[in-house]
Amino acid sequence: MDFYFDFASPYGYFAATRIDDIAARHGRTVAWHPILLSAMFKISGMKPVMDQPLRGAYLLHDVPRFARLLGVPVTIPKTMPLHSLVAARAFWWLQPADPAKAHALAKAIYHAHWGEGRDMATVEQVAEVAEPLGISAADLAAGVQDQVVKDRLRAETERAVQRGVFGAPFILIDDEPFWGADRHDQIDQWLARGGW
Amino acid sequence: MDFYFDFASPYGYFAATRIDDIAARHGRTVAWHPILLSAMFKISGMKPVMDQPLRGAYLLHDVPRFARLLGVPVTIPKTMPLHSLVAARAFWWLQPADPAKAHALAKAIYHAHWGEGRDMATVEQVAEVAEPLGISAADLAAGVQDQVVKDRLRAETERAVQRGVFGAPFILIDDEPFWGADRHDQIDQWLARGGW
Repeated sequence: MDFYFDFASPYGYFAATRIDDIAARHGRTVAWHPILLSAMFKISGMKPVMDQPLRGAYLLHDVPRFARLLGVPVTIPKTMPLHSLVAARAFWWLQPADPAKAHALAKAIYHAHWGEGRDMATVEQVAEVAEPLGISAADLAAGVQDQVVKDRLRAETERAVQRGVFGAPFILIDDEPFWGADRHDQIDQWLARGGW
Repeated sequence: MDFYFDFASPYGYFAATRIDDIAARHGRTVAWHPILLSAMFKISGMKPVMDQPLRGAYLLHDVPRFARLLGVPVTIPKTMPLHSLVAARAFWWLQPADPAKAHALAKAIYHAHWGEGRDMATVEQVAEVAEPLGISAADLAAGVQDQVVKDRLRAETERAVQRGVFGAPFILIDDEPFWGADRHDQIDQWLARGGW
């Protein structure tokens, strides 16, 4: 299964708290793919939610409500939307050599940003959650400037578009697409029944 | 509870097949409010789904899949999006004098359009499903041209925007907003628990 998300999306955060457990119940694993929605919006013609007057107000009401239902912490960040370039690159810098650490960093970034409301835009801010995982700030700073890493993030975003991804969270079971954090029950059923 | 929808929306159709039953389980009733999303999009800055390249393709895959899961018939109409002005006015023409008949007509229009794929844009097309309910085509034709009816539809759409509605289906439990056909479980829980 492939899990496409942007660290800027609270619904991606909700999915991140659940998707591994749902997959594991059915003997599946999940490949995490942070991407940049801003790049995707240029293709899809969609606008960021917070730039849409009524949708933005709904999100500010829906996100805390959704979090209470799931029983996960949430704090609306002061700075929105998150500029998620550094965070996404940090993941793709770590991922080839140590996928487990990249996964742990992604969870830590999501928790800091959406669980605690902390900005995660700069190398220094990402380093605060990376260092407890044994990742040095100096290595991180160099890694997110590596051309291979920059290219990987761009390629992941382009590949996502090729696969039909237009928003986040977006989950592909093999090639079966599910968009949104409110489709977890459908994903669970799809895995249990092998489709319907 | 208030159920805002546009006959052009397949997700509104899915909600229409379930919302009364969900409400009834908790001793509630639902007031149906057909509105015009096209008027709403001018305010919210959203674009029709089918005009967004990747989202349109996803919808054509998701709608039949969603219907199979719910066990309701679906046929993708040849003509999309439905020009839903006549259908919405027909509802608001009937509603003040006979809310039950207006409700039955809404269900019949949704079934014809999304269950059977029939266009429901013209008075003649709406009359085909209205006549079996004892509504004469001549009365219908006159009703949808009544200025009071035109004003009511406009007022309903404006009132919806004032209440924060920006898409469809949109369900308000008292003033608690739920957007989308994938929130039925949350609506069910909200009613069962009196919020959370």
